Amino acid sequence: MSFIRNILNSRTPEDGNFFLQLKEILGFKPKTKSFYIKAFTHRSMNIKDELGNAVNYERLEFVGDAMLSAVIAAYLFEKVPHGDEGYLTKMRSKVVSREHLNKLGEELNLISLVQSRIPVSNFGNNIHGNLFEALVGAIYLDKGYNVCEKFIYRSVINPHVDIETLEGKVISYKSLLIEWCQKEKNTFEFQVYEDTGNDELKHFSVKLSINNKIVSKARATSKKKAEEKASKRAFFAFQNQITGLH
Amino acid sequence: MSFIRNILNSRTPEDGNFFLQLKEILGFKPKTKSFYIKAFTHRSMNIKDELGNAVNYERLEFVGDAMLSAVIAAYLFEKVPHGDEGYLTKMRSKVVSREHLNKLGEELNLISLVQSRIPVSNFGNNIHGNLFEALVGAIYLDKGYNVCEKFIYRSVINPHVDIETLEGKVISYKSLLIEWCQKEKNTFEFQVYEDTGNDELKHFSVKLSINNKIVSKARATSKKKAEEKASKRAFFAFQNQITGLH
Repeated sequence: MSFIRNILNSRTPEDGNFFLQLKEILGFKPKTKSFYIKAFTHRSMNIKDELGNAVNYERLEFVGDAMLSAVIAAYLFEKVPHGDEGYLTKMRSKVVSREHLNKLGEELNLISLVQSRIPVSNFGNNIHGNLFEALVGAIYLDKGYNVCEKFIYRSVINPHVDIETLEGKVISYKSLLIEWCQKEKNTFEFQVYEDTGNDELKHFSVKLSINNKIVSKARATSKKKAEEKASKRAFFAFQNQITGLH
Repeated sequence: MSFIRNILNSRTPEDGNFFLQLKEILGFKPKTKSFYIKAFTHRSMNIKDELGNAVNYERLEFVGDAMLSAVIAAYLFEKVPHGDEGYLTKMRSKVVSREHLNKLGEELNLISLVQSRIPVSNFGNNIHGNLFEALVGAIYLDKGYNVCEKFIYRSVINPHVDIETLEGKVISYKSLLIEWCQKEKNTFEFQVYEDTGNDELKHFSVKLSINNKIVSKARATSKKKAEEKASKRAFFAFQNQITGLH
């Protein structure tokens, strides 16, 4: 084993550093170590279990992929309340794209933990994402959904998922809306008035009319914010027509 | 509202029977009722929340679909240890097929709970599966993954998922293997011997050779079972070549 380790310069489960490095990545102590050993065993090791089934990380990818999809789905459902099913599906596929998963696996340097008889330099780029998926699968099997979800928040959602970026780096819905109205020769008008209501803070209410018909209303602590909010609402109401612009 | 209810002959949340019937389907008492009301609100009701976002079951389908995929993935990972990623993916797609989900939703008579301005008789068949997915999504959001998983076991896996049926109604791997050997002009031999080992029960061990090379071994409490087990192992080892037969 030490022969292989030397060739590949990787950490193996026999090497105490494997679980030390893993614990740092996970943020918790593994319970059933065999799941993680499997998650970092390449098929070239040609290991079989007592039933003759291959022991490597490939099947764990299937579980990890499913858990990533589930956690990201629930997250987007909450964070993107205006998006319909198709829109949410598109956003999710950006988060769990092969390219993004490869980046995640590479950042965690998961490849340094792989046991393989093929030098890691021979692997294509997808090994990073595959190992990341397998690791997520191992976490689910070891500790259940809630710990797995926490890991996905810690390693994917919190550092990497920005809803506005996913939505296509829209800076101002107001400017998008105005651009669209001008192009389509629609008239538009923002009617803003101070409206403290029952709040202590000063508030502004706005009515946005397109072709003299009120299409959205909003309320916020500044005139600018209220206009932006009303524009965003109108934007999503007219989404299909407006996105035809880009 | 009673006018709509009468037309559609469905139960609405205003009707006490809605939550009675729902509780029976769920097997537990809902905590946040609004998720379930949404799960049975058709878009034709044209309801918006305070932010102007549509309130109907369509977005919940996205969450339910993801949870079904995750729970079934973890189940198949454990139950089909010989299946690789592609095989598990195929098996899962049979379980969560549109046709199967429609059947599940229909059996639970979910359509009787829908609030809609369009008569339910106008809906296509997919509404059954869509409602089932939305209900699973509502359960996840209301009670979390573990309760959602339990519901999926109770309503999908336990009553409807049979691994052998999913694997293509294979009755005897031995006969499939023999059929393949004969077609390919391979010789085969089962060497069976009694082998009690350390067990109290009498056991039989078998070695299966193809072209005079041992390809699998198995051990069981009868000669027939041991042969079948060895055949199954060989079958999955040669899977790609054998399934070319069918």
